[in-house]
Amino acid sequence: MENNDIEKYINQGILYDFYGKLLTGHQQRIYEDVVFNDLSLSEIAENEGISRQGVSDLIKRCNKSLVSYEEKLGLIKKFDETKSYVKEIQKIVKIYQDTKNEELISKIEELSFKILDV
Amino acid sequence: MENNDIEKYINQGILYDFYGKLLTGHQQRIYEDVVFNDLSLSEIAENEGISRQGVSDLIKRCNKSLVSYEEKLGLIKKFDETKSYVKEIQKIVKIYQDTKNEELISKIEELSFKILDV
Repeated sequence: MENNDIEKYINQGILYDFYGKLLTGHQQRIYEDVVFNDLSLSEIAENEGISRQGVSDLIKRCNKSLVSYEEKLGLIKKFDETKSYVKEIQKIVKIYQDTKNEELISKIEELSFKILDV
Repeated sequence: MENNDIEKYINQGILYDFYGKLLTGHQQRIYEDVVFNDLSLSEIAENEGISRQGVSDLIKRCNKSLVSYEEKLGLIKKFDETKSYVKEIQKIVKIYQDTKNEELISKIEELSFKILDV
């Protein structure tokens, strides 16, 4: 697999994790077969009784929907932000455990408020 | 307004906060006029050049969509969970500031990991 193919598959996986439930059951099944189970378009076409082109179009439509959901709701962006605040809290906890610097603790409170604003 | 009307409006507001962007622009405008701007169905019907019944049906359809999004993605439920962990962190910070009990700090780290699992 080429590097940008791998990247594409990773992005598809993340988008699907966040928004896959908004696809129909039929779309979910085929999308999972392509992206997670690594089945070929021809195999899926045969399983589903549709054309190879039909499978390919369905995946494109799903990708478009998933990207559009992220554009509208931004859940991946928000999760990344939350994660960075949480990591910062964990870093401060570590530093506190080394230094016992009490002032660090109010910084944790500050960061926790930011999580609710994400 | 009756008590359960108020509740309904609050729920509509929260659902719209989380999922309103998934409605079409047209739906968003009318939904906001009813739920946030408190316009009457007749006023909106006149503004939009559609029937009063049309406005009422649109609101019902929007409510159904918003509820269905929450059933699928559960963002409101997840936000409530995150909020409860953050509040717990803030409570522990307060207790630490009173007691200087160092053991509390590792509890903060534990809670911060839970936020990422929501």
